[in-house]
Amino acid sequence: MSKDLLRQRIPEGMMDLLPETAGLLEDLERDMMDLFRLWAYDRVTTPTVEFAACVQTELDREDHLFKFFDRSGRILALRPEFTPPIARMVSSRMHDMQFPLRLSYGGSVFRNTSGRQREFRQIGVELIGSASAMADAEIIALAIEALRALGIEEFQLSVGEMNIFSGLIEECGIGADVREQLENALSRKDLVAIEQMAENHQISEQARRILRRLPHLRGGAEILDEVSRLSDQSAVRSAVAHLRQVYDYLGAFGVQDALVLDMGVLREFAYYTGIVFEGYVAGIAFPVIEGGRYDHLYDDFRHLMAATGFALNLSSLLKFFPRKGLMPDQRLIDGDDPEAVIRRCREERAQGKRTAMALK
Amino acid sequence: MSKDLLRQRIPEGMMDLLPETAGLLEDLERDMMDLFRLWAYDRVTTPTVEFAACVQTELDREDHLFKFFDRSGRILALRPEFTPPIARMVSSRMHDMQFPLRLSYGGSVFRNTSGRQREFRQIGVELIGSASAMADAEIIALAIEALRALGIEEFQLSVGEMNIFSGLIEECGIGADVREQLENALSRKDLVAIEQMAENHQISEQARRILRRLPHLRGGAEILDEVSRLSDQSAVRSAVAHLRQVYDYLGAFGVQDALVLDMGVLREFAYYTGIVFEGYVAGIAFPVIEGGRYDHLYDDFRHLMAATGFALNLSSLLKFFPRKGLMPDQRLIDGDDPEAVIRRCREERAQGKRTAMALK
Repeated sequence: MSKDLLRQRIPEGMMDLLPETAGLLEDLERDMMDLFRLWAYDRVTTPTVEFAACVQTELDREDHLFKFFDRSGRILALRPEFTPPIARMVSSRMHDMQFPLRLSYGGSVFRNTSGRQREFRQIGVELIGSASAMADAEIIALAIEALRALGIEEFQLSVGEMNIFSGLIEECGIGADVREQLENALSRKDLVAIEQMAENHQISEQARRILRRLPHLRGGAEILDEVSRLSDQSAVRSAVAHLRQVYDYLGAFGVQDALVLDMGVLREFAYYTGIVFEGYVAGIAFPVIEGGRYDHLYDDFRHLMAATGFALNLSSLLKFFPRKGLMPDQRLIDGDDPEAVIRRCREERAQGKRTAMALK
Repeated sequence: MSKDLLRQRIPEGMMDLLPETAGLLEDLERDMMDLFRLWAYDRVTTPTVEFAACVQTELDREDHLFKFFDRSGRILALRPEFTPPIARMVSSRMHDMQFPLRLSYGGSVFRNTSGRQREFRQIGVELIGSASAMADAEIIALAIEALRALGIEEFQLSVGEMNIFSGLIEECGIGADVREQLENALSRKDLVAIEQMAENHQISEQARRILRRLPHLRGGAEILDEVSRLSDQSAVRSAVAHLRQVYDYLGAFGVQDALVLDMGVLREFAYYTGIVFEGYVAGIAFPVIEGGRYDHLYDDFRHLMAATGFALNLSSLLKFFPRKGLMPDQRLIDGDDPEAVIRRCREERAQGKRTAMALK
């Protein structure tokens, strides 16, 4: 393609936002940042460009980074998310502050995947320095309040627990290869595949029972009772007790009706260690909110630190809002005397009225 | 450097913004976007990543782009500014809208220069579709109102005119090589070098007179009278008449005291064609505002269109503001009964009060 034609186009996965959409995105982001401020979260900003070593976790199965080199040949990357960069920043620059830290962020993140949007606007929060059930409950409640504040009516937050899932898998006595198949089947809610796994593998009757129940462990506190009957490992017992506590707190937060406990919720990022959650909005196939506890991420940055948080993909929500049109209250000042037009505009604006002057 | 150490660092020229600074930047940007809305500018957003062909102007002397390849081997670049991407967007997606268009933008821009900040926050406006003196005056007045709204006290906007400068240079009869030396000397206000040029070259007495006066053509409307005495080329005459008109309008806008006409103002970007300006703040060596008219930029995108605008480098202004500290009105709710703490937080927040709960 000639340079001349290329100049008129944008790279794949990139988007222009025209005034109505860009204005809407700005308004949504302001509303969210106001909510985070109200909950005592303070905004931080990390660079768009990081060393790839910071944002590339060892366990990512595919490489979705936009990568390039600096002048010394080191590999740089556009940030695919904010959580590891904020862990880097807190570890290197904020370790002497008073914890817990409540931080918020907003900006573009980049994923070099095929066939969908590769730059999108993400906002989120991190609550760093507390492993308590109250901290988990605060983050989940704030995620739900965020969706409510956006005026989204049909949504659900699915809350899982990595240790419960891992404990049940261990209880089944199945190996790493089958675990991966199972994770894939669970994330697709593919009941047929899970049934086949229960049939095909040389596993005990108890293990089959757990496998078959896993996709159905979805609901309120009662599913925690069922998990306790399926496994009495100490790791599972303490995870169940923790999650039950969080669930009770979420009742006090007034958000229990917006969430479901779901032991099949598994987060794609390898760093999650405890409670994990996903927010789904009716009509969008992928989660618009992704979050959870990641107590080991800070190990990478040499500071042991419990932490939890979530990210909200604002770009994906834009289609849910009516097009507002350009701002309706715009005055257009015209006239034969340019200086009178200018003065009139100044007067209107001084009263806070959105005003344009007619131009030739 | 080991991957482990690299992970703790950020690439050269990149910055973390801790809560006080990041919160300040957010507040400043909101104030600016509110001002632009009041003046009837609508926000647009372009991608962070563009084809290099879009943002690389032929005449840039050095290549300051962060560049990399897409999967088809085409050259991508992080945007170094918003003006060409917005010209691309308007030409391809907004050409059927009603002109003049008033657009605003805000976001990170990237310049791969050595020894200074390489990502910074830029906001700005574009007024597209009017070649009138009123349009030039509106943009200059808005630039001054922006600095005033930020609460910056000591600043000055220097306003030049590319056609006047070019006309005077032509009047001197000096060639392209000397012109470049002269531009460099003028931008450094290097009077000695300019004097040497006047001495060294085989040029007429009239040309010497112009060269020696150029750095001193700074002031109010009286310098336009002097330009008229130095040259009566028709291009210079019409540029002087246009600039005089703009200057008069700026009186009606109430901003004449904040600006100075300066025939030595030359903008680094090659696309400027008419009035150009730079905003300087006491204590910062480079301009924090850069703007002007660029009627030929749209030629590249196959749409003839008069346009003018400016960009403000918000990052450079951060140091001018007192550190606000974390928000002072934060309530910390503590107690033995977690559910009572949660309820208390909900009540406080429902009243709009910034509230945190104590965590273990």
